[in-house]
Amino acid sequence: MSEHHPGEDVRLRTAAVVGTGLIGTSVGLALSARGVTTYLLDRDPEVAREAAALGAGRVGRPPHPVDLAVLAMPPSVIPRALLEHQRAGLARYFTDVGSVKVPPQRTAASVGADIGCYVGGHPMAGAERSGPSAARGDLFHDRTWVLTPSERTAPGAVAHALELVRLCGADPVLMDAAEHDRTVALTSHAPHLLASLIAGRLAGADPSRLRLAGAGLRDTTRIALGHPDLWTDILRSNAAPVAEVLREVAGELAVAVAALEWLADPDPAQQDRGEQELHHLLALGVTGRERLPEPARVG
Amino acid sequence: MSEHHPGEDVRLRTAAVVGTGLIGTSVGLALSARGVTTYLLDRDPEVAREAAALGAGRVGRPPHPVDLAVLAMPPSVIPRALLEHQRAGLARYFTDVGSVKVPPQRTAASVGADIGCYVGGHPMAGAERSGPSAARGDLFHDRTWVLTPSERTAPGAVAHALELVRLCGADPVLMDAAEHDRTVALTSHAPHLLASLIAGRLAGADPSRLRLAGAGLRDTTRIALGHPDLWTDILRSNAAPVAEVLREVAGELAVAVAALEWLADPDPAQQDRGEQELHHLLALGVTGRERLPEPARVG
Repeated sequence: MSEHHPGEDVRLRTAAVVGTGLIGTSVGLALSARGVTTYLLDRDPEVAREAAALGAGRVGRPPHPVDLAVLAMPPSVIPRALLEHQRAGLARYFTDVGSVKVPPQRTAASVGADIGCYVGGHPMAGAERSGPSAARGDLFHDRTWVLTPSERTAPGAVAHALELVRLCGADPVLMDAAEHDRTVALTSHAPHLLASLIAGRLAGADPSRLRLAGAGLRDTTRIALGHPDLWTDILRSNAAPVAEVLREVAGELAVAVAALEWLADPDPAQQDRGEQELHHLLALGVTGRERLPEPARVG
Repeated sequence: MSEHHPGEDVRLRTAAVVGTGLIGTSVGLALSARGVTTYLLDRDPEVAREAAALGAGRVGRPPHPVDLAVLAMPPSVIPRALLEHQRAGLARYFTDVGSVKVPPQRTAASVGADIGCYVGGHPMAGAERSGPSAARGDLFHDRTWVLTPSERTAPGAVAHALELVRLCGADPVLMDAAEHDRTVALTSHAPHLLASLIAGRLAGADPSRLRLAGAGLRDTTRIALGHPDLWTDILRSNAAPVAEVLREVAGELAVAVAALEWLADPDPAQQDRGEQELHHLLALGVTGRERLPEPARVG
């Protein structure tokens, strides 16, 4: 490779994936395909064997510390796993793929883990389905993969995590952990909860009414299929930033309801006001949606 | 055809499409492909010519009344269009494709239109893009197409509209107009406004933060790309049922925000309560989403 790359100076020869669900197995598939010897661990050995059978690596602990371990588990269990696997000498450096970055980092320090050799990570990829069978080696291709080093993070941890991102075909973005958490509250966690609320309204609806559901409703509520256990964990770990976004949405929702009520007012001026307010909210939605980057490719 | 069908007794030989946008042009393409002589009218003659060039029919008024005219325009302008085209003798029977059914029917009667030869209709199909160029002859294939006859609707109007639905390859559903409007408030109009509110939060976000937007957010906010003028019209026409759904969602949203705040409470019992409430909302969302019928085929 003639092109300079931040991860070029380090080579990832060995890795471990702890937690072989959708994301962990996809990491294992990507690394194994690029020649990295990858060890697979899961609290359920059967799940690790399933990932290994798909080509994500070999089951079990490595004989010597690997270059980098990837903790692929819900945010709340990352600190304890980091401490435990550091003490067992699993790897020189650690990263994770959790959707929230401040609390794991803070708790890891407080439980006594060495956070110098750890850097938080979050690939912007996923699927509604979970488990190894939903994994794909190209899951991270051209996706953003955030890394959140702190002033205490060793340069070697960042370099090895950048090499992981490169081998997975993703685009690395370095970001402050708190900024990351506020951002995903806006782009992922609050939208998830709102999609769940919309989908929840359908739970009690008469089946004949659901025949009128179209592609728009299916798209809008697709993320609500995410696993409630995992998402409770994510929302709990990022509660304050998510609550802040949702309070703002609640304020806008109150305006929308008021605007709809003004339309029924006998005073034409109130009707006009309601119509203008609705038009403003809808137009702002178009503006916001048009700002979203389109995916580089399908898949 | 050996299979009995409610629309079998009538044959649609001639039709008119008034308003050659996405839906109207798609109707024209479907009817023309099935051999129905179709006349295309639009307040902008250039748009009608564009639809005709795509194969949706011929531009201009028919020399004699056609069997059925399809009014493909926003709900608020349907009553006046119905009255005008009835007086001009455009067709024996009329239907429309508007997203709301009670107000056009009520207003049509009050402005003096003959609502006996009119039956409301609403195909469950669409696209974010608008205009003739986005039209497709198979847009309605295997989609639900609601018809809302009243006790004043002539049987011939229903029979001709059913034949239209059949020729477009859609599945007809007969439904009370008020029930239709309450249902689409739940399945389409309230979700649209909520998607607009979520998308609107992105309008002022820093571009670097939008790099963290993934496929989930794109799906959830896709419908927010709908045209603000059309959607203001739809929401205005169905204001009371939409407001009712949104008030319920606002109540659930307040519960969700409270649950997130309980998670930060020093009392572990409050934290548990918050977690349980969030899990309940998320699980209800999964239940509701799983009830949605999947499309019969892609496209």
